[in-house]
Amino acid sequence: MNYQIILEEIYRDIQPFAKEGKQADYIPALARVNPDQFGMCLQTIEGEQFILQQADTRFSIQSISKVLSLALCLSIEGKKLWERVGKEPSGAAFNSLIQLELENGIPRNPFINAGNIVVADVLLSRLKNPEKKFIEFIRALCDDETIDYNLEVANSEREKSYLNAAIINLLKYHNNIENEIEEVLALYFKMCSVEMSCKQLAKAFLAFADHTRKFDYAGVYLTSSRVKRINSLMQTCGFYDEAGEFSFLVGLPGKSGVGGGIVAIHPKLYSVAVWSPRLNPKGNSIMGMKALELLTTKTEESIF
Amino acid sequence: MNYQIILEEIYRDIQPFAKEGKQADYIPALARVNPDQFGMCLQTIEGEQFILQQADTRFSIQSISKVLSLALCLSIEGKKLWERVGKEPSGAAFNSLIQLELENGIPRNPFINAGNIVVADVLLSRLKNPEKKFIEFIRALCDDETIDYNLEVANSEREKSYLNAAIINLLKYHNNIENEIEEVLALYFKMCSVEMSCKQLAKAFLAFADHTRKFDYAGVYLTSSRVKRINSLMQTCGFYDEAGEFSFLVGLPGKSGVGGGIVAIHPKLYSVAVWSPRLNPKGNSIMGMKALELLTTKTEESIF
Amino acid sequence: MNYQIILEEIYRDIQPFAKEGKQADYIPALARVNPDQFGMCLQTIEGEQFILQQADTRFSIQSISKVLSLALCLSIEGKKLWERVGKEPSGAAFNSLIQLELENGIPRNPFINAGNIVVADVLLSRLKNPEKKFIEFIRALCDDETIDYNLEVANSEREKSYLNAAIINLLKYHNNIENEIEEVLALYFKMCSVEMSCKQLAKAFLAFADHTRKFDYAGVYLTSSRVKRINSLMQTCGFYDEAGEFSFLVGLPGKSGVGGGIVAIHPKLYSVAVWSPRLNPKGNSIMGMKALELLTTKTEESIF
Amino acid sequence: MNYQIILEEIYRDIQPFAKEGKQADYIPALARVNPDQFGMCLQTIEGEQFILQQADTRFSIQSISKVLSLALCLSIEGKKLWERVGKEPSGAAFNSLIQLELENGIPRNPFINAGNIVVADVLLSRLKNPEKKFIEFIRALCDDETIDYNLEVANSEREKSYLNAAIINLLKYHNNIENEIEEVLALYFKMCSVEMSCKQLAKAFLAFADHTRKFDYAGVYLTSSRVKRINSLMQTCGFYDEAGEFSFLVGLPGKSGVGGGIVAIHPKLYSVAVWSPRLNPKGNSIMGMKALELLTTKTEESIF
Repeated sequence: MNYQIILEEIYRDIQPFAKEGKQADYIPALARVNPDQFGMCLQTIEGEQFILQQADTRFSIQSISKVLSLALCLSIEGKKLWERVGKEPSGAAFNSLIQLELENGIPRNPFINAGNIVVADVLLSRLKNPEKKFIEFIRALCDDETIDYNLEVANSEREKSYLNAAIINLLKYHNNIENEIEEVLALYFKMCSVEMSCKQLAKAFLAFADHTRKFDYAGVYLTSSRVKRINSLMQTCGFYDEAGEFSFLVGLPGKSGVGGGIVAIHPKLYSVAVWSPRLNPKGNSIMGMKALELLTTKTEESIF
Repeated sequence: MNYQIILEEIYRDIQPFAKEGKQADYIPALARVNPDQFGMCLQTIEGEQFILQQADTRFSIQSISKVLSLALCLSIEGKKLWERVGKEPSGAAFNSLIQLELENGIPRNPFINAGNIVVADVLLSRLKNPEKKFIEFIRALCDDETIDYNLEVANSEREKSYLNAAIINLLKYHNNIENEIEEVLALYFKMCSVEMSCKQLAKAFLAFADHTRKFDYAGVYLTSSRVKRINSLMQTCGFYDEAGEFSFLVGLPGKSGVGGGIVAIHPKLYSVAVWSPRLNPKGNSIMGMKALELLTTKTEESIF
Repeated sequence: MNYQIILEEIYRDIQPFAKEGKQADYIPALARVNPDQFGMCLQTIEGEQFILQQADTRFSIQSISKVLSLALCLSIEGKKLWERVGKEPSGAAFNSLIQLELENGIPRNPFINAGNIVVADVLLSRLKNPEKKFIEFIRALCDDETIDYNLEVANSEREKSYLNAAIINLLKYHNNIENEIEEVLALYFKMCSVEMSCKQLAKAFLAFADHTRKFDYAGVYLTSSRVKRINSLMQTCGFYDEAGEFSFLVGLPGKSGVGGGIVAIHPKLYSVAVWSPRLNPKGNSIMGMKALELLTTKTEESIF
Repeated sequence: MNYQIILEEIYRDIQPFAKEGKQADYIPALARVNPDQFGMCLQTIEGEQFILQQADTRFSIQSISKVLSLALCLSIEGKKLWERVGKEPSGAAFNSLIQLELENGIPRNPFINAGNIVVADVLLSRLKNPEKKFIEFIRALCDDETIDYNLEVANSEREKSYLNAAIINLLKYHNNIENEIEEVLALYFKMCSVEMSCKQLAKAFLAFADHTRKFDYAGVYLTSSRVKRINSLMQTCGFYDEAGEFSFLVGLPGKSGVGGGIVAIHPKLYSVAVWSPRLNPKGNSIMGMKALELLTTKTEESIF
């Protein structure tokens, strides 16, 4: 498959959408990003790499980090995690407190905010220095020591985050948080603040696409079966209230972030990362969604 | 892959669950089925067939029919269907009126009752004789003229079905039903009453697994892209409130029915049907779920 | 208290609101009513009557009938009714299915549609000819044999009423309807179709204001304690999602109908009926609400 | 009316319920209260006082304080308060986040926690020293300088209160809190921690029963019309999810607290306070509810 030609075609085809949507602006660091950027990187399991535009520009990976924190958490906690978090699609906006209240403080899945806050709580309970471990894990995935947190982002998220504070208090009320609220939120926001480029993200997620290799990075070890299950969760729950739409249009497991990034994987073939800050009303990158839809249409390679 | 040996192992491994759960008993025809039956059939796209036990016994396919009615409907209505039905997981019990009311009469997806009732309404509006067309389509899929509706089942469902009557009235209130309520429900229940064996179901769903062949049965035509999207919907929405769990454990697109049947497909490899009447509290066959989980574990073949 | 002068003042003061709002138009019989009508009648327990404008014009009393059917039902069924209907304000739109589903088919109170449908079901189970009994009861309350149902209204309500059909089916699903759905709905809509003037309504509701007299009309007998409790229910539940607002502004128990009528009572002093077809977005008569607010403000006579 | 004889009868009649229910035990100060206490005081507007048992024992008034903080707030803020808080019954448990989320951060009424937290926020914005002003107001109502906050109660509530923290964060997210979260919660819990006896409560609430006197205490001034509206709110919203039941059984405006206290008023006749720590599942005092039901039954004096 000549992916480079396909990527070039995609880039041409998505131009009509270049000015649609608005970037996230709820914190200054996101608001001041130039919204008219676009990057893409596809990495095959054979080691080839195909890129478009600003594939080296780093951006805030935001909720994409939830896949990585889940992987770290599962490597430590295993199946027991599922006593505190569900595996079902949420069928409601990503931050809905309604389900959480009706379902007694068990978040629907680890990719909505409530669920990932529980993941952060587990990491705090089980690790001496979870922040350090998490960033080491990502650096190992990418084989790149320069990847790091953005403290300004983490701090300003924390200051503004009344909704997440509501969520964690409700979780604590239902005895689903073990640690101090402030500590858990601090870790949660820090993990979301990691900055990576499309190239780095594609590299990191190649580990989820290639089951022939051991998943063992910086001591974070996952069986092939567990990696598959993380992929399954991305498929059903990776796009908040638009998971069905993404699965329907793209046909690959993926995860989006409010910074405009999206990663997706085609098991046994490739991982792909795309980034463009303008979002649709559901919080997913417009050009990113379009680019991935065109990718599986043009290659005729979906998992279905 | 020697599927026959794997099926035999599965059959042995699931014996401890043989008496767990209860069959559906809300209508007499389902209540009087012997619950201690089990059948399974795996059909590869190369044409091999592997069976276990009562693979020839016919049972009420119930909601499995929703995939087939969606396929028929999409072949006629195309994309326009998505103006009246969503593509998102429902995140609530299969019959919940709450989402329907909050979302103004647009059902979350075509595999919950509300969504499939809209599908039935479209078929009624577009076809002269939708009952005839639907059964002809299934017969063509299976190349078997003996497949038919069970009128006793259809009639007794209709009599007892206050919840579905509530749903269709709410849909009509929101202007999402064009035809007479009684007619739509009659078609809906009739489609659910089809009786098929595991062998027949595996044969029918092979059409969704094999994209190299044209999907063209009794004049029902679907592009490869549309078939993939139906598969994607099975992945995210095929198991009511347990779609995430099934996707997580089995890793294949599938659809279950309250009669105890489950079908799943591995694109480009095989289709598989399993049947056992005893259900878990969420309405899915216990031995069926277990058998399919073991299938992808033992073969190490999930789509992820 | 010179009520006539006060009524005249009220009539003058509400003129600025004369063209606000729209009448109900979901059935032809309501749509063709001249919206620019207004009538009012205050009846003291000493027997004085004060009127304004079209106090003799009959209109569709609609949900005001729910107080009368509850009175009839309590006289037959007594406390047992409360096993099938609650006494709490609904805190949601009058026709919400959400609460009904969350609360397992027990309607919040007898003045929302779901609750009054259960009342109709009880009447059907306990009376040989509930339609005849109900109209005889109203005629006895008013001492006026000319009061009657409007069959055109009853029939066209029935035809259009998908939402009420959804409600009754959900009730039946939860085993809270004993009779045939069609029969219950027919009685329910017939009771809502009664036509009365402000004079007649004020006369009828005087029975709820005056506890010194026996409540015994056409064999419908209620203790003083039971009448008080019906009044209490009007106070907390008489105005759908605006019960608090009415109680706050007017300070009297009351009940409104979508035909533009409102009745209220001041226990031990008077009953009052007002009518004007233009409604606010919550379905209550704009001039009627305003007139009653001014009545208790000007007389300084609320129950609080 | 010989209220003393009636009170004695009531005390005798409620003995069978003396051991039913459990006291609140979510904080130590409430948990260690002897649950087998009972006090009652009825105060007429003519100045007579009738008491039963521990009418002088002080207890934590808890949510009864919400009426007093609303009165203080309305005297300062007037009608503008209703732009930030509703007047409708909540129709759901007192602490439900669901309505708050569905209704965009506008609490249903000032007597649920969310609504009273907004009241506390207004007091913080408008007053230099709201804590001082609030206790001075209560002392003036009772003409008793010994009434005070219980700091242990206020502090331990604050520590445990994850649910209220969730609520205030959700309010802040919807821009319905102006001040710092910690400050608002501190004031809120402090106001709930006031300790009063039945005698003191009856005295304080006499001001709401007697409209012939000016409502002017420590500079807190309310018009007769505003006092009536507070009474109306007690009628429709004073008992969380049991407001209808209390209104139905007792027929008076009232307000309960989780410490086991209940106050009620009969406008133009009397105020009454009752206290007993054992609660029903909805959080209202069992003997208190029973005593008030018997009071209006035996005196035949409800507002209806």
